Amino acid sequence: MGVEIERKWMPDKIPEEINGIPGKDIIQGYLCTDPVVRIRKEGEKYTLTYKGSGTVAREEYNLGLNEEAFMHLLPKCDGILIEKTRYRVGLSDDLTAEVDLFHGTYEGRIYVEVEFRSEEEANAFCPPVWFGMEVTGLKGYSNAALSEGRS
Amino acid sequence: MGVEIERKWMPDKIPEEINGIPGKDIIQGYLCTDPVVRIRKEGEKYTLTYKGSGTVAREEYNLGLNEEAFMHLLPKCDGILIEKTRYRVGLSDDLTAEVDLFHGTYEGRIYVEVEFRSEEEANAFCPPVWFGMEVTGLKGYSNAALSEGRS
Repeated sequence: MGVEIERKWMPDKIPEEINGIPGKDIIQGYLCTDPVVRIRKEGEKYTLTYKGSGTVAREEYNLGLNEEAFMHLLPKCDGILIEKTRYRVGLSDDLTAEVDLFHGTYEGRIYVEVEFRSEEEANAFCPPVWFGMEVTGLKGYSNAALSEGRS
Repeated sequence: MGVEIERKWMPDKIPEEINGIPGKDIIQGYLCTDPVVRIRKEGEKYTLTYKGSGTVAREEYNLGLNEEAFMHLLPKCDGILIEKTRYRVGLSDDLTAEVDLFHGTYEGRIYVEVEFRSEEEANAFCPPVWFGMEVTGLKGYSNAALSEGRS
């Protein structure tokens, strides 16, 4: 439902900024990666997500699933399930950094994503040092690529 | 993207009204039926559709797929693939009747659907005699139920 505008980084260590913030466990799998058709369990919330093509700005729809539908679709997913814990760290300017610590196959991987309200805001954003290397739009760094074992 | 408001009937013979109208071949399958997650090939157009719950009015999103994505998702579908030819018959009042003649497992089955712009319009609509029995919202008459062999 609309366009998602985001940038993404890869910190080289677990950021201290998540200390004291409760994490939410996420499991997600991919039915298709081009376009992305993804199912996700985050806490007790189940979602089917469709993402069109694009790097910074891409069409995205988040549609409700129930637990039964999620469990029905889970074995249809390809490749590797993505397991991670997400911490939401407030930044200045009403922005939020989503810090994902991966488990399972990708144990130790860390991503930070920030979603913006416009491309202007995305371009103007100055990332703090702890974000590390920017990987926005780089092939092989998407969760979809991780699910395919391409990373 | 938005709400679909429609009513549905089951003519007991092939309506003469489709004579001379070119039909479009449709193949569709279901990844999930509650909520509905459906893939469809109509001519050379490929779509992923999500439908929330509801009978006359239900949330519906139609999202683009490509041929490769469709072929990737096809073997993930459950049960019976739905094959049909669709004829669009213009009615008065800017409304269109979609007449579906089924093939394959459901050869001989016929459905007519009309989509409306509001629930008021749907309720006020007076169906022509050739539409036959109304099956709007009846369990077992949806394409999803047909795919499950529940009909």
